[in-house]
Amino acid sequence: MNRYQLVILSEDANRYRQLLEKESLPGLSIVTACRVEGAEKTLGECDILFGTPDLVAKALSYTTGRLQWVQSMWAGVTPLIAPSRGKQFVVTGVKSVFGHAIAEYVICYLLVCERNVIGRFCKQQQAQWDESTPGTLDGKNIGIMGLGSIGGAIARTAKFFRMNVFGFSRGGTRPPEVDRHFLPHQLADFVKELDYLVCVLPDTPGTSNLIDRAIFRIMRDTALIVNVGRGNAIDEASLVEALETGEIAGAVLDVFCSEPLARSHPLWKTPNTFITSHTAAKSLPEDVAPVFIANYRRLIDGRTLLGIVDPDRGY
Amino acid sequence: MNRYQLVILSEDANRYRQLLEKESLPGLSIVTACRVEGAEKTLGECDILFGTPDLVAKALSYTTGRLQWVQSMWAGVTPLIAPSRGKQFVVTGVKSVFGHAIAEYVICYLLVCERNVIGRFCKQQQAQWDESTPGTLDGKNIGIMGLGSIGGAIARTAKFFRMNVFGFSRGGTRPPEVDRHFLPHQLADFVKELDYLVCVLPDTPGTSNLIDRAIFRIMRDTALIVNVGRGNAIDEASLVEALETGEIAGAVLDVFCSEPLARSHPLWKTPNTFITSHTAAKSLPEDVAPVFIANYRRLIDGRTLLGIVDPDRGY
Repeated sequence: MNRYQLVILSEDANRYRQLLEKESLPGLSIVTACRVEGAEKTLGECDILFGTPDLVAKALSYTTGRLQWVQSMWAGVTPLIAPSRGKQFVVTGVKSVFGHAIAEYVICYLLVCERNVIGRFCKQQQAQWDESTPGTLDGKNIGIMGLGSIGGAIARTAKFFRMNVFGFSRGGTRPPEVDRHFLPHQLADFVKELDYLVCVLPDTPGTSNLIDRAIFRIMRDTALIVNVGRGNAIDEASLVEALETGEIAGAVLDVFCSEPLARSHPLWKTPNTFITSHTAAKSLPEDVAPVFIANYRRLIDGRTLLGIVDPDRGY
Repeated sequence: MNRYQLVILSEDANRYRQLLEKESLPGLSIVTACRVEGAEKTLGECDILFGTPDLVAKALSYTTGRLQWVQSMWAGVTPLIAPSRGKQFVVTGVKSVFGHAIAEYVICYLLVCERNVIGRFCKQQQAQWDESTPGTLDGKNIGIMGLGSIGGAIARTAKFFRMNVFGFSRGGTRPPEVDRHFLPHQLADFVKELDYLVCVLPDTPGTSNLIDRAIFRIMRDTALIVNVGRGNAIDEASLVEALETGEIAGAVLDVFCSEPLARSHPLWKTPNTFITSHTAAKSLPEDVAPVFIANYRRLIDGRTLLGIVDPDRGY
């Protein structure tokens, strides 16, 4: 059988190696590197690259025609799109493992807002018995932008909590829990009746600043916006303005146009905002290694890999 | 047909009257009272009493043999148990409507703890990018004490979030989501492997101080306790001690031995504690009136009422 030379390229490369070696994958030689510098020669000899997109993007200057497959360790593969274009290798993503964690994140923060967890906790510090009535998810309208595996997990969870589920995508498959579907030209109709707008969009040219001042003006002033996709989808200056003027009621932000968010960024001080520093779903080796393992088994069996990225769509 | 004289006894009596009048229930004359004082004569003539257990308990000195049915507006009917004993009327409770709200409450606070929402929000106030890895509900062991309609709703929700569901009750029906069931003599076995202990027990002599110092010593030091039942189930002095010494990791408390919690009570200052002032599920007229309406229709159709309280069990 073929022998494949794999380079694992990640700060957690040794942990990944342990997880892969436990599987005794046939025909696989494993080399690890925590950074590109010093690994140039190894990269020139690799058939498979398994790494974080930021490092892989740099590594692609040293790989050769031998490289046939790049498995990303992150859901977002934007750094890989440009350097992969026109090349012969296939890029696969890892989205399917993040749906559950992101659904927990979304439900957590919607309930934190509905039940005023922060306000109640402040009253508690003052020994105040606070009988104010909490809100509920029951019967609320949630709109999900992006209906891949993560959007689908959010839709299932929203339906479990008896929400009305609105979905927004450019077509393709729709999770069965989506009650009403909207296409890109229907964005204004999509947002206008929402209690919660949850963005799970990838970073592509088509998604940049999709949610801008005009959209905030259409939204309900009681609405919450949640961004667990990529920062580029929201025009941040307009978001700050919408929150300061009360055009919308709150924001839960895991991702930003530039990360980490600069200490001087106005969002740190914007009212009714939660900032969670890109932790909604961390790419943990224990979760991501099984994606590589399953795909490697498909490769040696001659089956199509899962999660292939379309460079024209960008995800 | 019969005519029934109904007294609605609640601070929200007028709101309840509006909701009942919209239904045009046949054969029903409605009188409202916000308090017992001044309503003594009316109470002597009523066939049905629909009210909050605190007020109904006082009103029962003025009712006569005409009274045939008391519909409680609260889940907890403890104040009614003693004054109802040996009387000819039936008492019905209203538990079924609270399951969804209480499941939202439990999931909210488990996620608030797992994701360290308060700690992250404090870092945010200091403009600190905090990439600490959040916890998850996935694969955790939840133990539910009390498996009625509220416990069943929590079990369903816990299973949706992929928890292992342990149930504790004195028998009777078990929700299908309960993976392992424990009887009262197995309490120590029940608690020892739990990540979350959720108490939904009613206030009865059999539940008083069921969770005491010995139980906290058996529990994992990483465990959280949640009380959404009644305060008497937990020995509060031992709970404070367990939280201060780190025998358990945290507490989420909606109910207390005495409410409102006194300003001098040590729980206000106990570490890793959330106090939510009996708001997990409020008895709102919009939710509770339909329970009366459905039961009244059963009464005039000669069918058995739903939610009949067994005075010997106390719920």
